[in-house]
Amino acid sequence: MIGIIGGGQLGRMLALAGYPLGLTFRILDPKPNAPASYLADHVAGSYDDHDALSRFARDLTIITYEFENIPIESVRLLAQTCPVYPPPDALATAQDRLLEKQFFQKLGIPTSTFAPINHRADLDTALARFGLPAVLKTRRMGYDGKGQITLRTPGDIPHAWERLGQHPLILESLVPFERELSVLAVRGHDRTTRFYPLIENTHRDGILHRSQAPAPHLSPDLQQEAETYAHRVLDALNYVGVLAIELFQFGTTLLANEMAPRVHNSGHWTIEGAETSQFANHLRAITGLPLGSTAPLGTAEMLNIIGTLPDPAEVLSRPDAHLHLYGKPPRPGRKLGHITYCTRSTSTP
Amino acid sequence: MIGIIGGGQLGRMLALAGYPLGLTFRILDPKPNAPASYLADHVAGSYDDHDALSRFARDLTIITYEFENIPIESVRLLAQTCPVYPPPDALATAQDRLLEKQFFQKLGIPTSTFAPINHRADLDTALARFGLPAVLKTRRMGYDGKGQITLRTPGDIPHAWERLGQHPLILESLVPFERELSVLAVRGHDRTTRFYPLIENTHRDGILHRSQAPAPHLSPDLQQEAETYAHRVLDALNYVGVLAIELFQFGTTLLANEMAPRVHNSGHWTIEGAETSQFANHLRAITGLPLGSTAPLGTAEMLNIIGTLPDPAEVLSRPDAHLHLYGKPPRPGRKLGHITYCTRSTSTP
Repeated sequence: MIGIIGGGQLGRMLALAGYPLGLTFRILDPKPNAPASYLADHVAGSYDDHDALSRFARDLTIITYEFENIPIESVRLLAQTCPVYPPPDALATAQDRLLEKQFFQKLGIPTSTFAPINHRADLDTALARFGLPAVLKTRRMGYDGKGQITLRTPGDIPHAWERLGQHPLILESLVPFERELSVLAVRGHDRTTRFYPLIENTHRDGILHRSQAPAPHLSPDLQQEAETYAHRVLDALNYVGVLAIELFQFGTTLLANEMAPRVHNSGHWTIEGAETSQFANHLRAITGLPLGSTAPLGTAEMLNIIGTLPDPAEVLSRPDAHLHLYGKPPRPGRKLGHITYCTRSTSTP
Repeated sequence: MIGIIGGGQLGRMLALAGYPLGLTFRILDPKPNAPASYLADHVAGSYDDHDALSRFARDLTIITYEFENIPIESVRLLAQTCPVYPPPDALATAQDRLLEKQFFQKLGIPTSTFAPINHRADLDTALARFGLPAVLKTRRMGYDGKGQITLRTPGDIPHAWERLGQHPLILESLVPFERELSVLAVRGHDRTTRFYPLIENTHRDGILHRSQAPAPHLSPDLQQEAETYAHRVLDALNYVGVLAIELFQFGTTLLANEMAPRVHNSGHWTIEGAETSQFANHLRAITGLPLGSTAPLGTAEMLNIIGTLPDPAEVLSRPDAHLHLYGKPPRPGRKLGHITYCTRSTSTP
């Protein structure tokens, strides 16, 4: 049985992809109606409850995670008795925006200019160095645009400091990027590595809105550059599983923004749009099975369903539409599902 | 919540296809470890236990079935309080080989020559009429080649009669067909109907071994002929859901062998090989959602895994291989899973 820390939509889609491989699943998630709980064993405990952790871990063969805001101590504790993939170090790095940027820097992967901010004086020094606009972010617990404030004028600074100043922070220069991309890699235990084509992502209110794959106007050079950077991350972390790195494109330059050591929202199109989905490939990787082809099957566009549920009949009136609902009650700003539209190359042989 | 009578691999694949549509499932299956029980509510009762039937039916919005050998009385009882699709009449017809053949005949759909056999004298009369070789079959409860014996010489008759003579029987002339095909149709509540391309099937020991889709050398005329027959069946039964009809090809002639009012083993390739799988389309049909495209994505070959489990790593060493295991313990002659190999038309746009 595979253990998944977190029982959200990513865990749900992992389980859906894993049953055909003959796998069974147990999730750890404090929420009683977590999206994956309908189709997996469920330990409903908090991520730092040692009793829940030990009930979760019982008889598991492999543990993975689908959610990053879990105490790294819990993950390291679990790793003492059961292999955890991707490696806990990858999670520890991704959980802290400062460590993450320093990690990219150490590997020679370009990033925006950044500085750690522990005191108000650090902020002034950093702003004097790289000027406005800049983004002030909490080092930890940020996702979907939470925990970050863009500073455009000096007048934005006091409010931002008031809201975030009690946390360890990072200041990043605001890159005038042309577009956001992501690279999705999967690596097996034997270090075999496959890449999906780069994905172009559009955000709204800090939340992923739309992914297109392969990214329009994708040059082989750009794909190659992204793969080179991803390879460095995979090597440095002794990585096993799916890894996503979010990138800013800026002419022919790519800057690494952040990484996610897990299946990723920008890879949901792979369910129908690639020969093997990111979910199946993540599971193949961590269980030691050969990886599946990452070739795209035409082009795909994925739209997130956020906040309110659409009429499924309307969505599916396009015969190339694939609807994925996560079984969550609607709430503003919440990811409730996604729709993938596929355009195939000639469909009959 | 959708109720599925039967919790075998077809129920399991229905549930896997249905969660993304926001559906939840309850199965009725006497077996404690039925393949679908891992991912659905499970009422573990027998198909004729009224108490189990009523626990199963509680709060269901729609009932479907994935297994044909269920007492039709139970299905009709359930249909009094909850809509059942495909219509119970379709199941009643498919459960009895004689009714089924008479039904095809009434609709002008060609079949092999057949005769009801209730007494030994009927058998002699029928054999005198259409000669050997012929197949003696039980009218009911036959599947995967069970309950049928081929008569090639007069010496085969006494043994066959001894084994089957206590059941109501049907004798069918043995058609010297060139190949076996199946047509897979799906019809919605609004009578919208879509067809997958004809599938070529190869059996071993009476069990489906291999399906290829689209069937090699498929002419538009043959596809059209099969669709015409399927349309008659769908119309006559006021059908909703997926319907499979097994056909014998004989030059440019198609003879209907039997029908299955459910998702069908010969349609498993649609999971990766068609724009929308038979499982998703069956659920879309019965829940009143628009049907998805049935267009094939290249060519697909499906092989059943029967009796013994292969090494998954070996199966998946072909990067175009998709493995589907059903979570069943191995047993000779048992369908344990399937593998689909996909050959895509040009894979990048």
